[in-house]
Amino acid sequence: MGTYAENAPVIVERAEGHYLIDVGGQRYLDAISSVWVNTFGHTVPELDQAIRDQLGRVAHSTMLGNGNRVVVELAEALTGVVPIDNPRFLFASDGAAAVEQAAKIAFQYWTNQNVHGRSTFLTIGGAYHGDTIGSLSLGADGFGTDLFDPLRFGVLRAPGYDDPSWAETAAAIVAERHEELAAAIIEPLVQGAAGIRVAEPEAASELAAACAKHGVLLICDEVATGFGRTGTMFASEQCGLRPDLLCLGKGITGGYLPMSATVAAGHVHEAFLGDDLGTETLYHGHSYGGNALAAAVALRHLELIEETHVLANARGRGDELAGLLRDRLTGVAGVVDIRSAGLLAGVELAAALPQLTARRVCAAAVARGVLLRPIGAVITVVPPLSITSPELETIVDVLEQSLEATLTAETTT
Amino acid sequence: MGTYAENAPVIVERAEGHYLIDVGGQRYLDAISSVWVNTFGHTVPELDQAIRDQLGRVAHSTMLGNGNRVVVELAEALTGVVPIDNPRFLFASDGAAAVEQAAKIAFQYWTNQNVHGRSTFLTIGGAYHGDTIGSLSLGADGFGTDLFDPLRFGVLRAPGYDDPSWAETAAAIVAERHEELAAAIIEPLVQGAAGIRVAEPEAASELAAACAKHGVLLICDEVATGFGRTGTMFASEQCGLRPDLLCLGKGITGGYLPMSATVAAGHVHEAFLGDDLGTETLYHGHSYGGNALAAAVALRHLELIEETHVLANARGRGDELAGLLRDRLTGVAGVVDIRSAGLLAGVELAAALPQLTARRVCAAAVARGVLLRPIGAVITVVPPLSITSPELETIVDVLEQSLEATLTAETTT
Repeated sequence: MGTYAENAPVIVERAEGHYLIDVGGQRYLDAISSVWVNTFGHTVPELDQAIRDQLGRVAHSTMLGNGNRVVVELAEALTGVVPIDNPRFLFASDGAAAVEQAAKIAFQYWTNQNVHGRSTFLTIGGAYHGDTIGSLSLGADGFGTDLFDPLRFGVLRAPGYDDPSWAETAAAIVAERHEELAAAIIEPLVQGAAGIRVAEPEAASELAAACAKHGVLLICDEVATGFGRTGTMFASEQCGLRPDLLCLGKGITGGYLPMSATVAAGHVHEAFLGDDLGTETLYHGHSYGGNALAAAVALRHLELIEETHVLANARGRGDELAGLLRDRLTGVAGVVDIRSAGLLAGVELAAALPQLTARRVCAAAVARGVLLRPIGAVITVVPPLSITSPELETIVDVLEQSLEATLTAETTT
Repeated sequence: MGTYAENAPVIVERAEGHYLIDVGGQRYLDAISSVWVNTFGHTVPELDQAIRDQLGRVAHSTMLGNGNRVVVELAEALTGVVPIDNPRFLFASDGAAAVEQAAKIAFQYWTNQNVHGRSTFLTIGGAYHGDTIGSLSLGADGFGTDLFDPLRFGVLRAPGYDDPSWAETAAAIVAERHEELAAAIIEPLVQGAAGIRVAEPEAASELAAACAKHGVLLICDEVATGFGRTGTMFASEQCGLRPDLLCLGKGITGGYLPMSATVAAGHVHEAFLGDDLGTETLYHGHSYGGNALAAAVALRHLELIEETHVLANARGRGDELAGLLRDRLTGVAGVVDIRSAGLLAGVELAAALPQLTARRVCAAAVARGVLLRPIGAVITVVPPLSITSPELETIVDVLEQSLEATLTAETTT
């Protein structure tokens, strides 16, 4: 926060489609989808209308012991698209809470069946699952995480996606130590916060097979990758995965309202059936879980995905973005790697550059009207799924100019 | 979930003021404020309009590194009412996340100052702070919590509010073990989820004094008690507390949209100032933290609290509810205690009754058109702050009838 002001934050006042407009009237192409949540852009008439319509009914009623029509309708609609068998839904609002719920469900799944000792998790190097203590425990070290070690629970850790043998090693850990494991958790296809680390799609199947063989639950965290971000509705589809538990967030409401969800397969849900207030009960519920306004916009958003060609656009524009970045930035001084999956792309700068270089490149892009944001030394390019070809050209043009201007300045100072 | 259907959940379709209306057209007086979030009732024209107006600007833009006008305005408005010096705000969506943020801030506050070993927390018996692993660690055992002990971090625990010497004991623990303590966390005035356990307002000052003397941060979790629930804007006011960290949620949006916040005093915030990406940085942020639609309704809600006499109504109707419960239920077979603070009331049933009795009493009330929900053996009565005297009469009438009908049935079976 000490440098917040000098980082010239954009203070948004309103938006039009893919553009955010600040309090001074400056327009910015939202090339990070407001940190990966936005899908159809802002001020989408159909999504606005869904909220207006639900306001005419009710904004919120509790899901603790009761229900709400629009939330039931959302669960029914999600049932048709999630890559999970006989799905059951537990809604929350923060993505981290969806991960916490999945971890607790996996843990209690075993104690409910009187299996003891399956009390830890296999997680992947470089993983990010959220900032609450449970989700932070599942995530990797680094970026101020280790600091909280006295509060984090221990896990078993396989290598990250930057190691081609990550899945083989993870599968070996499952084979060897399955009696300690409640579940394995992965970010299918892409480790986003690790700096857009992309796995071979088929690699995860080796881990999934080991989990199935040894009875370890598989949790897919699709908070970042879900709802079209990587070109298919869920990244699990490209990896051929049918997890036992699935975490959803970000794109679920098209970037409009806080909502997250944990989806459990039917066989997981069955382990929680029992007497009212019995020991099988999962005592977990957030006050605003299943908020009706959020459910209404999420439901309309799902319909929009089906009514439009936005997933095809995400694939087409994803290929185009990958090509543009490769053609225009390969060989540019300071750029060492370019990675992407669908509309989730990262441009990695050399580790030898000053730590704040990626920050400065993004600031230069913001000054040129394109909102970008780095993760460490990686500049992430994550436009809305409805992005157009000319807008991609603009983004890559501006990124190229910003890289050149910043790296020239770095070299001469 | 095994008994969900037989518990006859109310499936809400729409609402009118203090009434929820189910898919069959049945009307229910919402006497639990949709689990303690609702303040002015449902379908409030001013709150509806605030959301419609913000939809015309932008639904959401990221607060990670950037800002949004309506969120800045909300922070400015909250600054005028929160019981904390020079407040700084970190928004999230689930209340549990606000607690996680407070715990992490308190922990890192010490490491940022190179003070080591202050790595645990003093918490209160019976406390509830949320269901994520960090907030669950701070909360007390029981209700399916112990089960997760292998994932929870350890804390020091003082007695709960049912022990008159809780504050004295807590203060003694602080005096003795302050070098291990990052912070103490309390629910000011009322432990809600513990079954509406009410403390003497002045008791907490003994703990606060010990914290101040020994440099232990004080966290007030006002997720349940904030925004008028106990008759003042915050329960901390009645206790004479000015905490270092404050957790907000539930009533912050009037029960409309998911929003929570951690408020840090200026001197806490200062410990996090430093170089960009330096070791002082708090790496914690939820994608939808500072959602613009939620901020817009929260801002209008704050104005409504000031424009109306809703806090005076909460105090007046709170006294009335306490009187009605005392006059009508004292001596009723099976009722062993009645407790309340403002419009947060609990009627405790005898422990000797079957475990599900409170559940059955509430089901009987729901069948009579009043939505009630128990916590263990305690029937909670938590109406909106705008509740009227005749509506309170209805609630207590129905509760009395439901108690008699249920306890007669229990006795005869």
